[in-house]
Amino acid sequence: MRIEIICTGDEILSGKIVNTNYAYISRRLDEVGLDVVWGTTVGDDRDNLLASFLAAGERADAVIVNGGLGPTVDDLSQEIAAKAAGDILALNTEWLGRMEAFFLGRGREMPANNRKQAMLPQSSEMIDNPVGTACGFALNIGKARFFFTPGVPRELYRMLNDELIPRLTEMRGGSTLHQLKRFHSFGIGESRADRLLEDVVNLAPNGSVKLGFQAHYPQLETKLAVRGSSEEDILRNLEPVETEVRNRLGSFVFAEDDSTLEGVVLDHLGMRGQTISVCELGTNGLIASRLTQHDEDGKVFRRGLLGGSLEEIFKALGLNNETEKMMPETAKLTAGAFSKLTGSTHCLSVQVKHNPAQPGKRASGTIAVALAQPDGILLRQSEIIGDAHRVRLGAVELGLDYLRRVLHLLPLDERSDFEKS
Amino acid sequence: MRIEIICTGDEILSGKIVNTNYAYISRRLDEVGLDVVWGTTVGDDRDNLLASFLAAGERADAVIVNGGLGPTVDDLSQEIAAKAAGDILALNTEWLGRMEAFFLGRGREMPANNRKQAMLPQSSEMIDNPVGTACGFALNIGKARFFFTPGVPRELYRMLNDELIPRLTEMRGGSTLHQLKRFHSFGIGESRADRLLEDVVNLAPNGSVKLGFQAHYPQLETKLAVRGSSEEDILRNLEPVETEVRNRLGSFVFAEDDSTLEGVVLDHLGMRGQTISVCELGTNGLIASRLTQHDEDGKVFRRGLLGGSLEEIFKALGLNNETEKMMPETAKLTAGAFSKLTGSTHCLSVQVKHNPAQPGKRASGTIAVALAQPDGILLRQSEIIGDAHRVRLGAVELGLDYLRRVLHLLPLDERSDFEKS
Repeated sequence: MRIEIICTGDEILSGKIVNTNYAYISRRLDEVGLDVVWGTTVGDDRDNLLASFLAAGERADAVIVNGGLGPTVDDLSQEIAAKAAGDILALNTEWLGRMEAFFLGRGREMPANNRKQAMLPQSSEMIDNPVGTACGFALNIGKARFFFTPGVPRELYRMLNDELIPRLTEMRGGSTLHQLKRFHSFGIGESRADRLLEDVVNLAPNGSVKLGFQAHYPQLETKLAVRGSSEEDILRNLEPVETEVRNRLGSFVFAEDDSTLEGVVLDHLGMRGQTISVCELGTNGLIASRLTQHDEDGKVFRRGLLGGSLEEIFKALGLNNETEKMMPETAKLTAGAFSKLTGSTHCLSVQVKHNPAQPGKRASGTIAVALAQPDGILLRQSEIIGDAHRVRLGAVELGLDYLRRVLHLLPLDERSDFEKS
Repeated sequence: MRIEIICTGDEILSGKIVNTNYAYISRRLDEVGLDVVWGTTVGDDRDNLLASFLAAGERADAVIVNGGLGPTVDDLSQEIAAKAAGDILALNTEWLGRMEAFFLGRGREMPANNRKQAMLPQSSEMIDNPVGTACGFALNIGKARFFFTPGVPRELYRMLNDELIPRLTEMRGGSTLHQLKRFHSFGIGESRADRLLEDVVNLAPNGSVKLGFQAHYPQLETKLAVRGSSEEDILRNLEPVETEVRNRLGSFVFAEDDSTLEGVVLDHLGMRGQTISVCELGTNGLIASRLTQHDEDGKVFRRGLLGGSLEEIFKALGLNNETEKMMPETAKLTAGAFSKLTGSTHCLSVQVKHNPAQPGKRASGTIAVALAQPDGILLRQSEIIGDAHRVRLGAVELGLDYLRRVLHLLPLDERSDFEKS
């Protein structure tokens, strides 16, 4: 089945907004085994909209159009859809009622121009939008089934997942269900993961599991797109592959599905009534930032100290007479002192020294991670190749992941692919 | 002149990578007065590449193709360009020499498969890539002039600005030069800025200045795209508009062109040998994070303290007996105490309390900003409507901007558009 996506709107066309909707639609379809083969971007312009609809109607089996369903005069999708299909617009009283109720629920009367959003091509099928005033619709143009969706990301995501994907998988035929299983790891690059896992999908029957990756440096997301005839069939197809992925990626996997590294660490500490403070140099305070973001009531994350210099951190911790010490000893010292000062059960100290590029030598960062915890102070050293930004992101992840490995009693000295060995 | 963009590659087509290259190209062309009217995305697929080139060659005057110039077998741009133009590929010895020298400079021999990158359509014009091995080229397909560019962003940006924009503006005719003047403000929303400034461009002769906006909440970028026959002509056209924009946006403008809010503040303090420490609650430590990122040698930014709770901040500052105090008094207390503790000339304390949505009442955040400085402690209170993320971003900007206003002796009580009045 040949699927195309048409994104509309001057702000997308002119690059004022980066087109994340396109990426979302295409990625979600890929995850359920539907391939997008062509993408088009056009502005709020009648001639170009019509030309793009007619061209896609000749080439594709299914077309998703995004945007242009709003209440203003430059929202043209319904009008041009009707024209391209040789249809006329008619008031959809069901949607009009829904919109009036929507505004009433917010204590307001519906503005007159919203009425336009209930004018749909007469032959079209209305598609529900439970979170906005732009309803979707489907109709045939040329040889293709067109699906019109709202430009507001939240509304698009909901409609795509709840309404469009079921319709598209039905069009493809069969009653196949799809599910996505995700693993999040730190320390394995995409190419090594690919080599490690390339044959795991053979453990599933009939190519029912597809392997994919998404790198968000320094994290890697490993995705298993599974299909099956029922929920049970999906679980059966997935089980051997899932187990083998866990075996092969081992301790590098820090979370699955919607979990995060900081969430895993905070949950572990929180369930044991433990607490954490973080002392940072050269990381822009991003470890404390990520932890506090996931600990809204402040029960686990106690305190973050960010120094502009090592001297300043020493001063803050009453270590003024230790200034001759070097990394990584300084990380150990500060972890111990900050732990005493805050009374937190765990205290993570991460220090980064950036080494600029030199002739014949690439830029890198020297990293020291020290963790003060009930059994003493643990230390990990590292060097990551790259510019300051890359080193900083690596150091933040290394620090949080070291904490996870200590908490979960995992190997502490496994090298990541980003480190100099 | 009708310009189209064709983005190629499976990773873009499948949404694995968000297409920021498209947005960059289109926005840069818009800034020099060139309109993009159509965008196409296709994968590494011979049939679809050919079809997209032929279709654009019929519709457009100029086409920018991005991606597919790499050394691997799925990089097909040169091959399909030649086919679409009825041309053949030939070895470009100039580029081959350049690549060999490029690898030699890195102490390596050129891998054999890079030779493919010097195979260009025989009738094409080579376009220089001073920062990579993928050279660009231009040739005619159908009625349009095609420009082929590399997918690596850094290489694309350089080629677009140095090579393509001059060629495209020459194609458009005349010897017009273009320049972009930018103002960065905090506190004015895009719609108010639009109303405030809509007539300023009339101060320039012959429509030579075009006004545009780019919102990066909570900052707003106001852009003046200026054209002229010479550098002097551009300055002459820009001057009255530039002055008027500064007058109307007034104290809300915190920086121009490549300057940033944190940079402006750090420069001011640094030139006077002054220092800053930051105490944060509810902001995820993002104020300290932004300051330290711009102060790599740690001469101005001294120390950041991020608390998981107010109690923890009180404990850190030896204010344990003040726990009955309320916001904004707590911000004032902590700014004073942290200033004494750190010895910084300036100490900024920002505290945020999130108020969840209730029936009939939208979510908001109560914000207190206190600044301890040589003349005493100053206080600013605020309430911003929105979810936790929006409030947090607003509080960070409000804190940094308050510091700027104090340093620059500007009005301290101008309300921003994001605040509840």
